[in-house]
Amino acid sequence: MSGGEPLERVIELLSRLPGVGRKTATRHAYHMLRKGEGYGLELADALTELVQETNLCTRCQNYARASLCSRCADGRRDQARICVVQGPQDVTVLENSGAWNGVYHVLHGVLAPLDGVGPEELKIRELLARFPGEVPIEEVVVATGASVEGEATAIYLAGLLSPMVEVTRLARGLPAGGDLEYVDGPTLQRALEGRQPL
Amino acid sequence: MSGGEPLERVIELLSRLPGVGRKTATRHAYHMLRKGEGYGLELADALTELVQETNLCTRCQNYARASLCSRCADGRRDQARICVVQGPQDVTVLENSGAWNGVYHVLHGVLAPLDGVGPEELKIRELLARFPGEVPIEEVVVATGASVEGEATAIYLAGLLSPMVEVTRLARGLPAGGDLEYVDGPTLQRALEGRQPL
Repeated sequence: MSGGEPLERVIELLSRLPGVGRKTATRHAYHMLRKGEGYGLELADALTELVQETNLCTRCQNYARASLCSRCADGRRDQARICVVQGPQDVTVLENSGAWNGVYHVLHGVLAPLDGVGPEELKIRELLARFPGEVPIEEVVVATGASVEGEATAIYLAGLLSPMVEVTRLARGLPAGGDLEYVDGPTLQRALEGRQPL
Repeated sequence: MSGGEPLERVIELLSRLPGVGRKTATRHAYHMLRKGEGYGLELADALTELVQETNLCTRCQNYARASLCSRCADGRRDQARICVVQGPQDVTVLENSGAWNGVYHVLHGVLAPLDGVGPEELKIRELLARFPGEVPIEEVVVATGASVEGEATAIYLAGLLSPMVEVTRLARGLPAGGDLEYVDGPTLQRALEGRQPL
């Protein structure tokens, strides 16, 4: 087709992103074209810089531009408390919430034996290597998701870490603003099990 | 945040695409990172080539890599019949259907006075410039969409072109495989108005 080869390549590459089919990829590619050369070159440049200059923080395994990420290098953060998350996005979510002032550890996945993801595929060895640590670590909050895999990973980590440190996990219960009638059964069950004195 | 500036730039640029919010853009950016340097550089390269080497065909105004696109330059296509479409994607759809062997003219939009899109904003002057043409043009099929703007554009073009050439438009009616009970009122009305002898 006219526009030819690079258009086809852009469409093919974009359609490898999760949730992006060929139709969406085609629409995106045409929009990139329509936005003009400036936009396309800026995106290409940012992308090049992103993939070339990003590595994993040697401590928390989050994406970073230096060997130690800005949070691990930040003396004002509580370096004695580690929040363990599945992926880098979770760090962003927690940071945006403003609810956590400790540091992080990014597993880059959860245990999923059926998909061939065992402990070796996650950054668990790197987590263990953080002990005892320059600053003695007082608490590890396991903040994996509430899926079966997330729960299994939390239990596995608790088994490894509890001899060395206090291990906690995020509370399960009603989401903020959630009306009871819209809450699913398992969530309600967790909320009841975890009920607190008023 | 760590990963910092280029990540933020990629997210910001991706979120300018239609239908892509900040959340989706963030997910895409992280996936580009996770896919590794090879993927990111390949996409950046294809994108650079795409925006730098793509121009508009001087005749049909579709995206092309040469001054004349492959279809306008193809002697095996019926150069006497022009199908007028809103955008380059429509050319792809028609080509994939295998239903058209003529050439195209891409308007790059439809008339939308409320959005400030008048005839000057579309490639209408370039359409008129194709007459009389090296090969005398026998038919113009207006294949704009069935929206209000698409219909208005078709009527406007018919007014301009009918003194010079036969102007037709795509039939309106039931979509192939469409059960009557799922068809909306206006479509049904068009199908009745355009009923054909059996």
